[in-house]
Amino acid sequence: LPAAGAPGMWRTWGVFPEETLLKVPRDIPVLSAATLSVNPCTAFRMLTDFQSLAPGDSVIQNAANSGVGQAVIQIAKAFGIKTINVVRDRPDLPKLVERLMALGADHVITEEMLRKPEMKDLFKIVPKPRLALNCVGGKSTTEMLRHLQPKGTMVTYGGMAKQPVTVPVSAFIFQDVELRGFWVTQWKKDHAQDQESLTSMMDTLCQLIRRGQLTAPACTEVPLQDYKAALEASMKPFISSKQILLL
Amino acid sequence: LPAAGAPGMWRTWGVFPEETLLKVPRDIPVLSAATLSVNPCTAFRMLTDFQSLAPGDSVIQNAANSGVGQAVIQIAKAFGIKTINVVRDRPDLPKLVERLMALGADHVITEEMLRKPEMKDLFKIVPKPRLALNCVGGKSTTEMLRHLQPKGTMVTYGGMAKQPVTVPVSAFIFQDVELRGFWVTQWKKDHAQDQESLTSMMDTLCQLIRRGQLTAPACTEVPLQDYKAALEASMKPFISSKQILLL
Repeated sequence: LPAAGAPGMWRTWGVFPEETLLKVPRDIPVLSAATLSVNPCTAFRMLTDFQSLAPGDSVIQNAANSGVGQAVIQIAKAFGIKTINVVRDRPDLPKLVERLMALGADHVITEEMLRKPEMKDLFKIVPKPRLALNCVGGKSTTEMLRHLQPKGTMVTYGGMAKQPVTVPVSAFIFQDVELRGFWVTQWKKDHAQDQESLTSMMDTLCQLIRRGQLTAPACTEVPLQDYKAALEASMKPFISSKQILLL
Repeated sequence: LPAAGAPGMWRTWGVFPEETLLKVPRDIPVLSAATLSVNPCTAFRMLTDFQSLAPGDSVIQNAANSGVGQAVIQIAKAFGIKTINVVRDRPDLPKLVERLMALGADHVITEEMLRKPEMKDLFKIVPKPRLALNCVGGKSTTEMLRHLQPKGTMVTYGGMAKQPVTVPVSAFIFQDVELRGFWVTQWKKDHAQDQESLTSMMDTLCQLIRRGQLTAPACTEVPLQDYKAALEASMKPFISSKQILLL
């Protein structure tokens, strides 16, 4: 895999300086390898770089059924960290909840439930989260923030709602919450000279894959000549399957 | 001075455990001593705890004519840090600008100017700030944030506009800005067992006062029996003079 950036990926062969590439172990399934370098890396870094979480701590995230969201559920599970997963309400909600629970989710709730007093009952069985992962923006973010522990951190890595992040002043002053951002492309640039942290992350992720604790997201394999159909499918809303081009 | 909290301040005499009090040097003017423990401490901590600033770096702040704002200008000046000070437009603006420049402000601008392309010219003579201090919220905050350096920090310590802080998702992801909060009362609680950092802060502030680099804010001295008039005056808008009760 290219260590940073994607220097022309639609090709069968290419010659690169060795230090710009990462070796992928032979025993990793090809779909896992093909989807390894972005979403699982984003999930791994967000779970480790912002709060030092111990087993039993909890994390809350919205867009929990996204590629990153699924990786967060599985990596957190492997680390013994509880996940509270927020998704949009939808006709096939029970099916989605079942799928995320099967991945290792501890709790799956809708955005509407975030606003309800029943959240208090949830926090009798799971501690309030010290880390919130935000891929949405807008109302979803403000509601999620309300449940964060004092001195907790919210990391924004996407803005699916196309709305800004809105934070009451009191959350900063009296709850001492911290708001940060994450972009894996920038992280890789910043760590280009730090092969150690890149390879140790990849080793950990590959081990999780080998043990069956981190699976590839739902994928649709498409022959390269049908790339237009794959591009179209990838633009449709509510499709959570990744389009994988076969060379 | 009480080291943390204010255990009944309207009194002439009181007996306290020694470790709950801080000694104030004899050679500090009484108005400086009376106004030392909140605003200058807030300014000092915000300038030192969030970004490691070097001489020549810059800081941007709104509500620059507040008690904290005036302390930020003076402490930053003493540290060799440039200040960009944002104030609301008002009839006596030139007088206010003059007063803040006399305190050591490098640049004083109105909130309207924050939005104008002329800001580019400002950043030819002063580097973009790595730290923003926010006491307002709402539009003022979002506009100020736009001028922050990538990987810069905004610290919110007040919400005078009574509006939340609104942040574009892109600021988190692509600019990697960090949003934090500060409340000096909480800081003092958190550091109750850490006399070292409290006394070293007080020593630094008292030295600045002795050298004339940190002056008391504009004060109105009121005999204690007129406390009602002082309370009323303190509630009026646009009054920047602190009401000091004389025991």
